[in-house]
Amino acid sequence: MLEMNFCNRCGGKLGWRVPDDDTVPRHICDSCGLIHYLNPKVVVGCLPIWEGHKILLCKRAIEPRHGYWTVPGGYMENGETVEQGSMRETTEEANARVKIGDLHAVYSVPHIGQVFMLFRAELLDLDFYPGTESLEVRLFTEEQIPWEEIAFNSTRFALERFFDDLKTGRKTGPPHMGQYVHGM
Amino acid sequence: MLEMNFCNRCGGKLGWRVPDDDTVPRHICDSCGLIHYLNPKVVVGCLPIWEGHKILLCKRAIEPRHGYWTVPGGYMENGETVEQGSMRETTEEANARVKIGDLHAVYSVPHIGQVFMLFRAELLDLDFYPGTESLEVRLFTEEQIPWEEIAFNSTRFALERFFDDLKTGRKTGPPHMGQYVHGM
Repeated sequence: MLEMNFCNRCGGKLGWRVPDDDTVPRHICDSCGLIHYLNPKVVVGCLPIWEGHKILLCKRAIEPRHGYWTVPGGYMENGETVEQGSMRETTEEANARVKIGDLHAVYSVPHIGQVFMLFRAELLDLDFYPGTESLEVRLFTEEQIPWEEIAFNSTRFALERFFDDLKTGRKTGPPHMGQYVHGM
Repeated sequence: MLEMNFCNRCGGKLGWRVPDDDTVPRHICDSCGLIHYLNPKVVVGCLPIWEGHKILLCKRAIEPRHGYWTVPGGYMENGETVEQGSMRETTEEANARVKIGDLHAVYSVPHIGQVFMLFRAELLDLDFYPGTESLEVRLFTEEQIPWEEIAFNSTRFALERFFDDLKTGRKTGPPHMGQYVHGM
């Protein structure tokens, strides 16, 4: 988590109190009064699908979860839409070309202030290769997925729902909504 | 936008350059090296639905768009899920009890770094009244909606899609995906 000691605007010392017309404490500058709000970050990504049942996964070359597998995804940036962010991350991590489809999963991780938004995506060709943040990128069928080496609960949630959907024949619908619960 | 001059951790002066292993410039502390990432904020809210075709709107008592109408919504907070945030905002702004349903609309506003996530919701009773951030809260049929006094493009997008869905009989499906385009 961020260490919030000093004001971004004036460099003054930050206090910790409830602003007027608010209900929860915030970091407030003792000098200039600026309130520093901390809000959740959006992680955008996709499940690149090949032949309807194979998913492209990336083996992480960075922390956290170095060496574990996940779908392409990362922090959404200012200046982009959720779809653009998902495509950018897929290019950066797997050099893969995709067509973004329906929103597949929305997964909240309240204790670290994150929301994952993962889309279904059509993988357009097989000319993918690892970006600098990936050790390896590969297609996996359900049987081939390294379930014990999946990086994040959000990834596991999205993959499990994807293969469930394949079995039940669910081709569209609202995104699967999930949240991290401690101990799971 | 935030004025990023000083480091939150050590109070040092912030520079503006591309970090190692990154592709875009960030605010980096000249003293301690901490990188300050700025990412989009999530606005969570809902369309509280009564009798299947009436929507609860709030007349804003705060800037921006004081005096204009919108659905209950506001910045998602750390420590909550998207559904919890939507319910909290609905309580704060309209003192309304809702049951959150499917995700109705996801609307990106790239130039100010925002993503709206608006749910369909069942309004559970009529005992709603304005919170401190609202001047008035009321139910509207499509014909009654004050289209010229709608606060945000995201609100307009969500309302238009809702009434379209009513006409076409679309009761479920992926969320409507939208984005703000300058000049629209």
